[in-house]
Amino acid sequence: MQLSIERHPEAATRTATVMNAIRRRIAARTLTSGEKLPSIRGLANAMSVSPSTVVEAYDRLAAEGLIRSRPGSGFFVAGSLPLVLADVEPRTDRAVDPLWVSRQSLDGGADMLRPGCGWLPADWMPTAAIRRALRAAAKAEDAMLTDYGATRGSRALRGVLARQFAAEGIDAGADQILLTASGTQAIDLVCRFLLQPGDTVLLDDPCYFNFQALLRVHRVKVVGVPMTPTGPDMASFAEALETHRPRLYIRNSAIHNPTGASLSPQAAHRILTLAAAQDVTIVEDDIFADLEPEPSPRLAVLDGLATVVRIGSFSKTLSASVRCGYIAARADWIDGLIDLQVATNFGGPSPIATEIVSGALSDGSYRKYLAALRSRLAKRRREVAATLETLGIRPWLEPRGGFYLWCRLPDGQDAADVARRALRENVVLAPGNVFSVAQTARDWMRFNVAQMDDPRLPALLKRVLDG
Amino acid sequence: MQLSIERHPEAATRTATVMNAIRRRIAARTLTSGEKLPSIRGLANAMSVSPSTVVEAYDRLAAEGLIRSRPGSGFFVAGSLPLVLADVEPRTDRAVDPLWVSRQSLDGGADMLRPGCGWLPADWMPTAAIRRALRAAAKAEDAMLTDYGATRGSRALRGVLARQFAAEGIDAGADQILLTASGTQAIDLVCRFLLQPGDTVLLDDPCYFNFQALLRVHRVKVVGVPMTPTGPDMASFAEALETHRPRLYIRNSAIHNPTGASLSPQAAHRILTLAAAQDVTIVEDDIFADLEPEPSPRLAVLDGLATVVRIGSFSKTLSASVRCGYIAARADWIDGLIDLQVATNFGGPSPIATEIVSGALSDGSYRKYLAALRSRLAKRRREVAATLETLGIRPWLEPRGGFYLWCRLPDGQDAADVARRALRENVVLAPGNVFSVAQTARDWMRFNVAQMDDPRLPALLKRVLDG
Repeated sequence: MQLSIERHPEAATRTATVMNAIRRRIAARTLTSGEKLPSIRGLANAMSVSPSTVVEAYDRLAAEGLIRSRPGSGFFVAGSLPLVLADVEPRTDRAVDPLWVSRQSLDGGADMLRPGCGWLPADWMPTAAIRRALRAAAKAEDAMLTDYGATRGSRALRGVLARQFAAEGIDAGADQILLTASGTQAIDLVCRFLLQPGDTVLLDDPCYFNFQALLRVHRVKVVGVPMTPTGPDMASFAEALETHRPRLYIRNSAIHNPTGASLSPQAAHRILTLAAAQDVTIVEDDIFADLEPEPSPRLAVLDGLATVVRIGSFSKTLSASVRCGYIAARADWIDGLIDLQVATNFGGPSPIATEIVSGALSDGSYRKYLAALRSRLAKRRREVAATLETLGIRPWLEPRGGFYLWCRLPDGQDAADVARRALRENVVLAPGNVFSVAQTARDWMRFNVAQMDDPRLPALLKRVLDG
Repeated sequence: MQLSIERHPEAATRTATVMNAIRRRIAARTLTSGEKLPSIRGLANAMSVSPSTVVEAYDRLAAEGLIRSRPGSGFFVAGSLPLVLADVEPRTDRAVDPLWVSRQSLDGGADMLRPGCGWLPADWMPTAAIRRALRAAAKAEDAMLTDYGATRGSRALRGVLARQFAAEGIDAGADQILLTASGTQAIDLVCRFLLQPGDTVLLDDPCYFNFQALLRVHRVKVVGVPMTPTGPDMASFAEALETHRPRLYIRNSAIHNPTGASLSPQAAHRILTLAAAQDVTIVEDDIFADLEPEPSPRLAVLDGLATVVRIGSFSKTLSASVRCGYIAARADWIDGLIDLQVATNFGGPSPIATEIVSGALSDGSYRKYLAALRSRLAKRRREVAATLETLGIRPWLEPRGGFYLWCRLPDGQDAADVARRALRENVVLAPGNVFSVAQTARDWMRFNVAQMDDPRLPALLKRVLDG
């Protein structure tokens, strides 16, 4: 079927609308590989367009290879549809996509300014300790330099973690800890272990944007619970548990991403009590732990790793380049998690990388560096809050640690629009809705105070705010 | 419901049989979370046991927490069932489990002998080049030591690969290459991109055992195609394509694992022609490429990466400790693969690890090391084949390279039994059926000639063969 009639601009728009509707259904897998598309007449009625518009849209989608015509039996979704996480909209419109901030932050050039990114600049990191650890690794025994390593990962590093946990009051052996290739991969493994397609997972709203991207890969339903300054809103949390019967609740404790909030003791106890009653496993991502001056309540500590899985990594305070995370969980889950890690990654993190992490962590300078880092961040949070104040941008709360400020933009401005304008000026921002499950953070923005040293930034922000 | 009657030993066995049947169905997910179990009377009839045996089995499974009783409505599968890859049989019976060889090889002590493992001993590897690369990395710029790195991974290393590909005749830019945390993770990402639960995937029979473990995680159906010394049996391959309409065909080219076979030019051309006609994507795992003296036909080369995805890593000839693999694929697939890698691992391999790989690959000694390694392996293959011959163990074919010999045991011996006996003597072997999709390699064994230097091995092998 081929239409060669010249078409009106309006007709072209209608055709594009039909094409996008089909693309979206295929991307969301409500139309799956091999499935028959709606009849031309049926879809024309449903979308209030003419049948010839649907014919044109189907022909074009067939030309793109997305669907196929079988003569005499209609159109079918083509066989080879990759799992595409990004929205099907044009790329200029990707500012509210949870992966947009990651991609821009990771791949932007060296001259890019990154108030929206999620890590410290290189010159804030303990590079001297890393260099010493690399030189020490160059003298390690042959097997450490060439072998896959044990499935649980370096015993030395797991021992360091077990001792840290013991100091917090968690009685977990090194055998309850599994090293992974990153904190994200740790959560991915737990999801693979516990989730089936179609399950429901609870997230804070707002929350770390990559939780949402990861859960799309697992084909599960996501339900958001609104955040308060002391934890999730308890009435909503209880109702979500009752209504949606989630399998998992994934969250940042300590300094919550993006809000900077910490759990109150009452909220921590209440979360555990409600979750236990409904058999919900909690994944507590504690990646910002070392940035807290004094530890706030931790679910993993109160619960003793019975129903809580603790996740962490060394990316935020030591090095994101070494790539190493961990899972601490119930002893009887570790074997299953190891099998999954072997099947999907043939083992854990690079043994060389874990050797470097162990070396740098036990370097005499590391504790002093952490103390200095916390003071430096506290000072920068105050300074950046004062600068943002002059632009009418106000933090939701004063975080007890870390590098994030979660801020409301003045005059109900659309943060995604502001972020798009900023990108044209070579500045990566993190607009609120990339963090929001329910897309209710339209005029919010997350700022990383450690990435805001550049003196041009205040004027740049003023310019993009004014449009 | 609680039975306190003392039971006969036979009754206890029958109860265990019923319990195992239910456990197996839950592990295989033919009974899923929340689903009602068969009625007591129905299952009793089906399994030819008394209803009281089923009641006892259900009560015990409920006590284990695997199922739950809802008063008045029967028994249901409990809500929180992790994905367990290992069989539910007792651990002493795990010798034919695809993960068994991996776990034993990775976690066995330093004194363990490993003719069954899949890599070279540390003293065969280019450790001097790795040490030089580590010392050079200690002088790298700060950002390389601390940042996540670009999403595609090191441009330098991708450039090295692109030039190698060009020398083979593949015209692929560095932008068609995505670095990953391992070769296995590369395949996992491609599976996540292209597969949906319930799809079918073709494998050679026998094939690398971890392909099967990985595909269980993806909840897909696996179909095996018998291997011949020049590639898959073509009639079976064509029939499997027609009957099962697979989405993927995953295989080792070059030196096939475990058989050591290489593709004939005719087989390579025929595979591509048949696969193209049915819209099947081929994943060609080329992890043993550098061990071939002269390159055998490659699907990725003939096809120019149009429908073939090439996978590789540096684990077999450089270092498994650095953990780095890659995907080379159609240009328009890379963005989707990157999004998936960001969502599930927040980026690719450790930048420090890729710096070490680049450094060692460009070390002046590396080419000479490879040439010497190939000669050393050729010699060891001849020597080990002669030793095995004295034990009545015969290789299927003489491989053109690599460290594997795929051998038939004498007198139809069960390789799994032999492997279990060997493990008691601290020797890891790789019994045939861990590689076989259809479990038709009962009396076959894969030997790694580089791991057979220990002078005790011939006598040890003789002992475990004799039982």
